[in-house]
Amino acid sequence: MIDEKVKKLATAANFGTITTLMRDGSPSTHVMWVDADDEYVLINTEIGRMKYRNVKRDPRVVVTVWDAADPYSYAEVRGEVVDEVRGPQARAHIDALSQKYNGTDFSDDSIQTERVILKIRPLRQRSY
Amino acid sequence: MIDEKVKKLATAANFGTITTLMRDGSPSTHVMWVDADDEYVLINTEIGRMKYRNVKRDPRVVVTVWDAADPYSYAEVRGEVVDEVRGPQARAHIDALSQKYNGTDFSDDSIQTERVILKIRPLRQRSY
Repeated sequence: MIDEKVKKLATAANFGTITTLMRDGSPSTHVMWVDADDEYVLINTEIGRMKYRNVKRDPRVVVTVWDAADPYSYAEVRGEVVDEVRGPQARAHIDALSQKYNGTDFSDDSIQTERVILKIRPLRQRSY
Repeated sequence: MIDEKVKKLATAANFGTITTLMRDGSPSTHVMWVDADDEYVLINTEIGRMKYRNVKRDPRVVVTVWDAADPYSYAEVRGEVVDEVRGPQARAHIDALSQKYNGTDFSDDSIQTERVILKIRPLRQRSY
């Protein structure tokens, strides 16, 4: 289950990071939109992106999300990508994220391959 | 050498993250104060922290830093901790960071072990 503070941070219009592991085991981190439901941290990316290829090879990730108004208030979630969702559901989810952050739907022109939702099961959650 | 955009982001009062690798190779990420000089990204931590133990075992890290006013503008620096500085210089550096972010010196009461500056040599720098 997702901690209450993590869920609150991740479902508000706060930015976060996802870290994935490269083939040689070194980390790579990107600033991202974030989301969560009661069980998973949700990251919406594309199947053509390096971070997607990384998690297909090694599902271990870490997601941070900080309060946009107070970065000292943040959460770290270490976990694993245990499932993915493509198709209309992933396309609708990126619209919902775009509405959350920017107040508009996501442009088709911004999609190069296919959207995919990464479902991240938390193994360790810490809030600061 | 540090890219101009990375240096500009890291020397302003912007927050960032550092990701280090746990013993099992999984990543851990924390939101941090950041700094840079012309050659290195600089992170000030304590020798008693997990992230310090992690980089002593595996020096590979990634640092991100985003514009506090516009998180879409951010940099990712993948690199290695190649040197460290302890003692008065590290203590003075955390005061300088505290002045940058909070406008006050850093409290001695907040130091549990010893401050240390991690000098991170960039291997790959990307700006978005």
